[in-house]
Amino acid sequence: MKVILDAFGGDNSPLEIIRGAYDAVIKDNSIEVILCGDENKIKDILEKENLISDKLSIYDCKEVIENTDDPILAVKTKKESSIIKGLELLKDDGGDVFISAGNTGALFTAANLIIKRIKGVKRSAIGVLLPTERGIKFLFDSGANVTLSPEYYNQLAIMGSTYYSLVMNKKSPKVGLVNIGVEEKKGTENIIEAYKILKDNNKINFGGNCEARDVLIGDFDVVICDGFTGNIILKTIEGTAKELSGGIKKMFKKNIITKICALILSSGIKEFKKKFDYQEQGAAPIIGLRKPVMKAHGSSNRKAITSAILNSKSYVNSDTISKIESCIL
Amino acid sequence: MKVILDAFGGDNSPLEIIRGAYDAVIKDNSIEVILCGDENKIKDILEKENLISDKLSIYDCKEVIENTDDPILAVKTKKESSIIKGLELLKDDGGDVFISAGNTGALFTAANLIIKRIKGVKRSAIGVLLPTERGIKFLFDSGANVTLSPEYYNQLAIMGSTYYSLVMNKKSPKVGLVNIGVEEKKGTENIIEAYKILKDNNKINFGGNCEARDVLIGDFDVVICDGFTGNIILKTIEGTAKELSGGIKKMFKKNIITKICALILSSGIKEFKKKFDYQEQGAAPIIGLRKPVMKAHGSSNRKAITSAILNSKSYVNSDTISKIESCIL
Repeated sequence: MKVILDAFGGDNSPLEIIRGAYDAVIKDNSIEVILCGDENKIKDILEKENLISDKLSIYDCKEVIENTDDPILAVKTKKESSIIKGLELLKDDGGDVFISAGNTGALFTAANLIIKRIKGVKRSAIGVLLPTERGIKFLFDSGANVTLSPEYYNQLAIMGSTYYSLVMNKKSPKVGLVNIGVEEKKGTENIIEAYKILKDNNKINFGGNCEARDVLIGDFDVVICDGFTGNIILKTIEGTAKELSGGIKKMFKKNIITKICALILSSGIKEFKKKFDYQEQGAAPIIGLRKPVMKAHGSSNRKAITSAILNSKSYVNSDTISKIESCIL
Repeated sequence: MKVILDAFGGDNSPLEIIRGAYDAVIKDNSIEVILCGDENKIKDILEKENLISDKLSIYDCKEVIENTDDPILAVKTKKESSIIKGLELLKDDGGDVFISAGNTGALFTAANLIIKRIKGVKRSAIGVLLPTERGIKFLFDSGANVTLSPEYYNQLAIMGSTYYSLVMNKKSPKVGLVNIGVEEKKGTENIIEAYKILKDNNKINFGGNCEARDVLIGDFDVVICDGFTGNIILKTIEGTAKELSGGIKKMFKKNIITKICALILSSGIKEFKKKFDYQEQGAAPIIGLRKPVMKAHGSSNRKAITSAILNSKSYVNSDTISKIESCIL
């Protein structure tokens, strides 16, 4: 597998991105990584850090789209950026997948323009895998499309279900529609309409409405929603986890005995943290495009990038895209 | 203060509701509670449980609105129910506040019909107080109105800000508009429009957009949103807390040593749980009505009801309602 990687995207680029790429090609012999970005700077880092592998190559891109850039304007004007040139390389079959931890809006816009959507797909969307005590949940759309028409929820369900079944290897995953109650007539007009369409779609295993509490603790595999709601859910999970961790830390810091407990429990705490750690989860797929494009978390470090590259393999090697094409039509 | 209490609302009614009322009048000598519900049944419980106090009285109501009842239909047909009769008693100055742990939709609908809104208020809404490491946050609307027009966000901001400043005793609380980014042009059309109106409102201390992660960990006091978003946030917090607690429990159950740690930490764990416990928070105010009406959590037990009654005092004794009236006009 040939991974085209944006070496200049994300808070910790380019150093951590390049380190992460190196670890990935060392760990998995079948992977090659093309590092997109300023050739001289990348060469410098590879040399300084002694990251030597013939599985790493450089694709020179002189511009960088910053996180603060306006996505649409950046896509229009920064034609020499690592995001634009990397996606064009993917389009021209120069690799199997493009991964970036950079500006989400710019990546999403450029990917739709350059890679284009699968025939019949009205909008592509970003999905996020959430690990829980009851397995991995797939939140889709996690933030790309602020509002959705009823028919589009149906496309989300088909695409999310196809991705989950092929990449997570689970037949007929249970799909839930995020809503403020389980009853059929709850929610906004759009959602009530969407429910009716989903109920009649025999291509998916529709399990009805999913309340937000059940995104993590319910028995749905794929939960679909508009991007506004998806963003609210993801960020509420993040805020709640931070708030709770703060409380736990305080509890452990109370006195010398509780501090000893913290030491004893440290492996458990580590494991626990790992589970709720974005950086362990690799990258979020943009689904609905003709080729695999993935968004790594903006704060990705070395480990996260390695994980993103390794995890992209199951998407690349699956028939997700052709299956979506045949289901959507 | 005279509290009119729905003795037949909530999962644990009537027993836990009546027990909770008893504890409240014992704890605070200035409180009287009127128990609304079937007189014979209430008398039976008071006798059996030996809950004797001249601060408790009964208001006979022969019907009960169940949680499974359709709110609008129930309000139309169950005229003898504890919710309808209790609210009518409040309207007729038979008490200072009405509290119910029953059917939220029915309570909200009936309260708007019977108590009526403050002059100028377009919609009433339900607010929830969320205790965090950085103080108490007020989420408003937490679920009453699925969608909102831009002008209504402005009313929410005024009402929420007034409630918070007078009941929580904090001058000029910082108000945030829940959105998917901090930039002024993020979000749905309604929210972008609302932002413009809020920015120009000098009656409130508007702090701009608040991402969902910052509802709990940010520095806003009052966060406003439509009821759909409010429901999603509240239930995501609930689900995340449950998921994390599950993980923590597992960590403590690993072996005999970790179990001993759990024992040592038990007081800290208790304190921690207490903080994230709905039942400790009392009831959620319905704001925008001409008299105080509060919704207790459906799963409220004895302790929660006591807490709801005791906490309602600060709302009843504040000038929130008259202040809102003068600010809205």
